[in-house]
Amino acid sequence: MKAWIVLKPHAERKLRNFYPWAFHDDIARVHGDPEPGAVVEVRDATGTLVGRAFYNPAAHIPLRMLTRGDEPVDSGWLRRRLAEAADRRRSIRDTNAVRLVHGEADGLPGLIIDRYGDVLVVQIRNLGMERWREILVGALRERFAPRGIYERSDVEAREDEGLEPRAGRLWGEIPDPLEVEEDGLVFETSAIRGQKTGFYLDQRENRRRLRGMVRPGDRVLDVYGYIGTFAIHAAAAGATAMVIDKDPWALQQAERNAARNGLASRITVRLGDALEMMEALLAEGRRFTHVVLDPPAMVKRRTEWERGVRRRFVEMAAFALRLLEEGGVLFFSSCAYPVRLEDLIEAVRLAAADVGCRLVVRDVTYQPPDHPWILQIPETLYLKTLIVEKQG
Amino acid sequence: MKAWIVLKPHAERKLRNFYPWAFHDDIARVHGDPEPGAVVEVRDATGTLVGRAFYNPAAHIPLRMLTRGDEPVDSGWLRRRLAEAADRRRSIRDTNAVRLVHGEADGLPGLIIDRYGDVLVVQIRNLGMERWREILVGALRERFAPRGIYERSDVEAREDEGLEPRAGRLWGEIPDPLEVEEDGLVFETSAIRGQKTGFYLDQRENRRRLRGMVRPGDRVLDVYGYIGTFAIHAAAAGATAMVIDKDPWALQQAERNAARNGLASRITVRLGDALEMMEALLAEGRRFTHVVLDPPAMVKRRTEWERGVRRRFVEMAAFALRLLEEGGVLFFSSCAYPVRLEDLIEAVRLAAADVGCRLVVRDVTYQPPDHPWILQIPETLYLKTLIVEKQG
Repeated sequence: MKAWIVLKPHAERKLRNFYPWAFHDDIARVHGDPEPGAVVEVRDATGTLVGRAFYNPAAHIPLRMLTRGDEPVDSGWLRRRLAEAADRRRSIRDTNAVRLVHGEADGLPGLIIDRYGDVLVVQIRNLGMERWREILVGALRERFAPRGIYERSDVEAREDEGLEPRAGRLWGEIPDPLEVEEDGLVFETSAIRGQKTGFYLDQRENRRRLRGMVRPGDRVLDVYGYIGTFAIHAAAAGATAMVIDKDPWALQQAERNAARNGLASRITVRLGDALEMMEALLAEGRRFTHVVLDPPAMVKRRTEWERGVRRRFVEMAAFALRLLEEGGVLFFSSCAYPVRLEDLIEAVRLAAADVGCRLVVRDVTYQPPDHPWILQIPETLYLKTLIVEKQG
Repeated sequence: MKAWIVLKPHAERKLRNFYPWAFHDDIARVHGDPEPGAVVEVRDATGTLVGRAFYNPAAHIPLRMLTRGDEPVDSGWLRRRLAEAADRRRSIRDTNAVRLVHGEADGLPGLIIDRYGDVLVVQIRNLGMERWREILVGALRERFAPRGIYERSDVEAREDEGLEPRAGRLWGEIPDPLEVEEDGLVFETSAIRGQKTGFYLDQRENRRRLRGMVRPGDRVLDVYGYIGTFAIHAAAAGATAMVIDKDPWALQQAERNAARNGLASRITVRLGDALEMMEALLAEGRRFTHVVLDPPAMVKRRTEWERGVRRRFVEMAAFALRLLEEGGVLFFSSCAYPVRLEDLIEAVRLAAADVGCRLVVRDVTYQPPDHPWILQIPETLYLKTLIVEKQG
């Protein structure tokens, strides 16, 4: 029997204005007995079809919109969405690595696809999309003819959808290491062992900004530096750079990557906790021209920010500002949706009060275009970077 | 007798963290009988010198910080501040027009100086700075050897300081028209007749963004277009462009500027109210690939936004979105401090709900580096531009 969901009026307006989620409170009635993970029709109070959605009554977000009006949800829908998403990335140049699909922002809820040359890395985050895995693999083979497709669905978000973490080869051959090319540099990473899908594609433009900013002889500190991408970009512009990370594998990769690009003499690494390492560098009297602070999300809910993460960000920023020489520049990112630009600014202002320096905002940046920010979906804006210069 | 001001403790903390203003509520006591407009010492409750400030008891902001600690306020102070400000602008290229001094952000409260080639245009906004006019002219002649210095202090802000509007030649020769060079283009404007000091220097980078984005054959609408700078940049990249403005002088300049750059055949102008003109274009069935909406501030206080300007912004954005073809791009700016990025986003979201289109945020930009945004002075951030692409 066909199942459909009837929305409450306020939710209908939101969904018609391209917001993709309905919560339990937004649902007036469930008709029929839709299976968890099924595609259901979504209707307004008068019975008019609003569109179709994934349904998962056990999840925090029970309805995730897939189409609007009477557009069906079938393999043609998936192929069209993939093609549109690929089209939107055509302007991204000088790299072989692009986020091809960014979930709701590309009209494909719970689906992330990153492309590294001829390898695709897929993440499936909800029960609805879970059922499309086989069709997806077929559509990706047909559209992109990849050498291999790997799945990295080992994310906590799946728990809320009643799904286990999952990772493994979906098709073809998965070279390990993977090679990411960016602006003439090569970075080895791993779809299997790396963080997320292997690489932080969303910091591409900030890496370019840093590289455009440093001068020969500059000293760059890359905190939470992972496989050394910021550091190596800076080194390519003539700087020396130090990478801090607590993951020995990442630091090993950073050193390999430095060597791979002929920059080994300009890169050093330090294994350990970011705050402890920054404290140690301060004690040693080390000072830098640029500090990149790109911490992990740390925050899923606003309350976590208020209850401790804010303080941690202030502490982090204070160390970074103390480590900067006068005229030095801090790149400070947050990739957590609940942390707003205003929060970052407040944290840095509090840190500056401690340190006693005036700060000029050199730039504020958001995620690059392969991680689209949809105006009507505030949750699609997650990455903010505050770039400030230390004066006096 | 030497005069000094004693701050309340909360204000002292704010000022020590580089905030430049103290309000009446921040002042504990006034010692001596300082003249309005004088430089006074600012002390904390223990008598320790915090710094020196302009004092004007009649103004909304009675204290404007000039120096910190025991740095004196004399002609050397002014010369150093001017030199530092000029230094900070060294990286601005491909133009002869730069904001040399941007008030509090450059440690010179109430002083704006724009440089157009060898002409300087000065704006003095408060009583304290008013007393420095002669010394300033001397310092500017000494540092920049300009052909002329013109004053454009015909701004409402002076009223609160008990000052009359004022404009006129301060020194030397003032060519009229003035020539602004930007990225190989020449714009004629006037220090005497133009808006503000003659040119919108703060939109320089957005003009470059637009120019980098348009393709031959694109159709650009430049609303509140003034002397046609966005339109002519777009035309230089092969677009045709229409300038809307209600100032006949500005449109005449726009046409002259188009001709001056050999682009007259690609530029048209329409005289009239922005909303009415957009409505007329819609009725004519005209559609554009890019719309630039750069309205005047309209808002001095938050309440004005809530009481009517918000609605006007929604209306404006709705017209602009309707005038865009699918895939088209809107540049929407606000130059009013009380209008936050979130407000612009909300206005555009409401407009999109009316129009029925999905919007991808292509970029968010703030003012360029010759209009510094000081992290500890929220009021120095005034220009925000939301760049969105219309989908579906």
